Amino acid sequence: MENGGLQLSLAEIVATLGGVLDGVVTPENKLVQRIAPLETADQHSISFCSDTRYQAQLAKTKAACVVLAPSLQAAALEAGLTCIVTDNPYAYFARLTQWWQQSQRDKNPLWGAKHIHPSAVVDERADIHPSAHIGPLCVIERGASIGADTVLTARVHIGQGCSIGQRCILHPGVVIGADGFGFAPENGRWLKIAQLGAVRIGDDVEIGANTCIDRGALDDTVIGEGVKIDNLVQIAHNVQIGAHTVIAGNTGIAGSAKIGEHCAIGGAANILGHLSIASGTQISPTSMVTRSIHRPGLYTGIYPIQTNAEWERTAASIKQVDKMRQRMKKLEQTISAFIESQQQA
Amino acid sequence: MENGGLQLSLAEIVATLGGVLDGVVTPENKLVQRIAPLETADQHSISFCSDTRYQAQLAKTKAACVVLAPSLQAAALEAGLTCIVTDNPYAYFARLTQWWQQSQRDKNPLWGAKHIHPSAVVDERADIHPSAHIGPLCVIERGASIGADTVLTARVHIGQGCSIGQRCILHPGVVIGADGFGFAPENGRWLKIAQLGAVRIGDDVEIGANTCIDRGALDDTVIGEGVKIDNLVQIAHNVQIGAHTVIAGNTGIAGSAKIGEHCAIGGAANILGHLSIASGTQISPTSMVTRSIHRPGLYTGIYPIQTNAEWERTAASIKQVDKMRQRMKKLEQTISAFIESQQQA
Amino acid sequence: MENGGLQLSLAEIVATLGGVLDGVVTPENKLVQRIAPLETADQHSISFCSDTRYQAQLAKTKAACVVLAPSLQAAALEAGLTCIVTDNPYAYFARLTQWWQQSQRDKNPLWGAKHIHPSAVVDERADIHPSAHIGPLCVIERGASIGADTVLTARVHIGQGCSIGQRCILHPGVVIGADGFGFAPENGRWLKIAQLGAVRIGDDVEIGANTCIDRGALDDTVIGEGVKIDNLVQIAHNVQIGAHTVIAGNTGIAGSAKIGEHCAIGGAANILGHLSIASGTQISPTSMVTRSIHRPGLYTGIYPIQTNAEWERTAASIKQVDKMRQRMKKLEQTISAFIESQQQA
Repeated sequence: MENGGLQLSLAEIVATLGGVLDGVVTPENKLVQRIAPLETADQHSISFCSDTRYQAQLAKTKAACVVLAPSLQAAALEAGLTCIVTDNPYAYFARLTQWWQQSQRDKNPLWGAKHIHPSAVVDERADIHPSAHIGPLCVIERGASIGADTVLTARVHIGQGCSIGQRCILHPGVVIGADGFGFAPENGRWLKIAQLGAVRIGDDVEIGANTCIDRGALDDTVIGEGVKIDNLVQIAHNVQIGAHTVIAGNTGIAGSAKIGEHCAIGGAANILGHLSIASGTQISPTSMVTRSIHRPGLYTGIYPIQTNAEWERTAASIKQVDKMRQRMKKLEQTISAFIESQQQA
Repeated sequence: MENGGLQLSLAEIVATLGGVLDGVVTPENKLVQRIAPLETADQHSISFCSDTRYQAQLAKTKAACVVLAPSLQAAALEAGLTCIVTDNPYAYFARLTQWWQQSQRDKNPLWGAKHIHPSAVVDERADIHPSAHIGPLCVIERGASIGADTVLTARVHIGQGCSIGQRCILHPGVVIGADGFGFAPENGRWLKIAQLGAVRIGDDVEIGANTCIDRGALDDTVIGEGVKIDNLVQIAHNVQIGAHTVIAGNTGIAGSAKIGEHCAIGGAANILGHLSIASGTQISPTSMVTRSIHRPGLYTGIYPIQTNAEWERTAASIKQVDKMRQRMKKLEQTISAFIESQQQA
Repeated sequence: MENGGLQLSLAEIVATLGGVLDGVVTPENKLVQRIAPLETADQHSISFCSDTRYQAQLAKTKAACVVLAPSLQAAALEAGLTCIVTDNPYAYFARLTQWWQQSQRDKNPLWGAKHIHPSAVVDERADIHPSAHIGPLCVIERGASIGADTVLTARVHIGQGCSIGQRCILHPGVVIGADGFGFAPENGRWLKIAQLGAVRIGDDVEIGANTCIDRGALDDTVIGEGVKIDNLVQIAHNVQIGAHTVIAGNTGIAGSAKIGEHCAIGGAANILGHLSIASGTQISPTSMVTRSIHRPGLYTGIYPIQTNAEWERTAASIKQVDKMRQRMKKLEQTISAFIESQQQA
């Protein structure tokens, strides 16, 4: 996709987003037409550098202007670059992309200024803020509420009694408030436990395509403000997720798990039910959390990949690792007993 | 969500669901207004205790009444509690939630008494029982059949020729009968194998949000009666799942796998294709089943999680585990040869 | 589902799809009514055998005719079978299933000859080829383009500016062009990075139910021609997938990963972001790729499954495997030092 048809002057950018413009501004670079990574930027591009690890790319870029931190300013000027200096270049870049998007994408691409797309199916007993946007083919059930400036892009389902905060973005296929997975065994069959709770989602939450958040069994499932959830994530009944936690795609969080604030959960990770995860914890992708984590830090449980031939040998030996430990212990005892006996002899 | 506006007397509950009411019934506790867990129950709540492990909570609860098994009756009375005694308190609780739900939720929240929501797209050659409920924005293709009292909540897809039994519940985003994943290689390209089978789903099956069950290649994919499947589960073509098996979220079952009855498959588990799993087998979450299981039992393959620093050392050593086994064997031989030589000397 | 109502003569099949008919053709077997696997084929079935491993089944089948390779021809004739001999029986079988399907299934089951189902929501600024078929309840946003003969089955979402090639098949619930997962941290909150790229999908691509492919951050996410993707797969922003690669269900591919041509990615595998995978690489199911793969081959990282009792011991010992390696080293040194000292003595 073309990066929009927007053209901005560097002066206009600094006037709006702040930062200090440094280096030479010429008629050639005073206007930028696209945002691009350092390596593919051309003389009409604005780029950014948020990390000194990319300093080598800085010397080679053709960008008209680079947004960067004070620590990189000297190197940039030495390389003859024009730059905008700011304390948090990555956040600056984020704001710049938002500006570009406003010129490029309709906020409500399919229905212009309309508040609720006519193809959406909305119960009359739902409470939808007049500034919310309900996209095509969404379903909103009775008693649900949608906060100000929240966008349900398309084909989003909000179940009965569930509430969504302000400024949220829910991507296509999201299902909020399907029944939690609860059954009682009786005579070899499963009896449904009706799920009487709902889902409550705070402000500024973003939820990726086809992600599912189930309603609680008795109490509610609760997602804190500022939480960001990627695509195809499964969040079971009665889970609680603290504010500003991010959860990458394909992850599964089992029932009644309680995740703290400012956590980062890697893609395809899994968290067992009824656990607590301390605020600030990071979980590596594909790791399985089987016990509560009380001390924040980075936790990992990735099984290493090998060529298949090596793996076959490793996998066979792994099953023996407990026996190996026992053999090791026996060997240590044999040796020390023998050495001792020799020394006494 | 408020736990409904229902108010029930203990006498009414016992008259309908059975069990024996014991302890003191006062004007204060004779009516209950909500169902709550032991720890958060108040004097208007009915709670339940299905396990002696929760006996400590029993002593502390403020619940008006607790549903419990005969083994806990004495302890409850001693703690001054009012209780309903029944052999299977968890099943009793399930029936109670269903009662509550009937007063709280519309079975068809968006369209009252109507049988098929007007926004659903239903082929005229589909066979839909008059007591089935087809929610908004569902798609039902030609030749599909939907049994009595089955509920397709919303945005459910039923492909051509697929059949759904009686009293099933399919949650939003479910896709039944998309094509199985089958291609024949020819000259470096993939040739589609048209999927000529369908999906047959038994009675009393529940299927979670955004779960997919593919149609068979030549024969049908078959889901037995009473099976319960959670959200975001992938079931490939020609899989067979026996009656009353439960499958938790994010799980994947590859083509032509045959799973027995009364199995329990944990979340994010995976089962390779063309395997058989014995009835009554339990698979722990995130475990990968790579061979048939002929003897029921609990099987596990969870890679342990550690702090990242510990994991780095473990992961490096795991790749050496086969070499370690060889070194161990050599060491054992060296030592026993040496000891023998010394003893002979 | 009945395998269609089609009846074909063997002569007609060979005339259309090629191959050499051998063995006895009688009034009984000259017409076939269904395609079936060798084991369940009856005297009205045509079957196929693509692998000498199934030769034993060949001797026992009741099929009217078996499609097979020249290497199996003699064995088949000896067993009294009628056969169609062709170099690639699996591809022949694929073409046969396609023929059957044309007689059995409507290409557009719900709306006959119509090009765009009236329930689909299509922006007038989208570019849809007149031979494309847009199924019920699809959403196509502004600036999207859909190539010739492409089928969006039902409830498919194509986001703004995304392009789909010719002869593609997108199954129900697919989401193309939701926002990539990108946020910049600022003062403990997450600032959205607007996703300015799109998704570009080549010709002859098939995408399974509820699979998500996100739009790029600045550049596009790109799926090469002939790629086949199964259900519930997550493809993050700026991923590039080479031509004719196949990806099985539940897999996750993180941002900016670059996968070569003719790769095969097993189910529930995961690939970290910013990696490169060489063309022709195969990844076993559930394996996690944490580094680039430069040499094609089969790579595996499956944690072995055991009975739970065995697993508990293994999992405990795995965490000790690094310490075991150190103990092993120390033991080797102790022994060799001791033996040396004894020999010197």
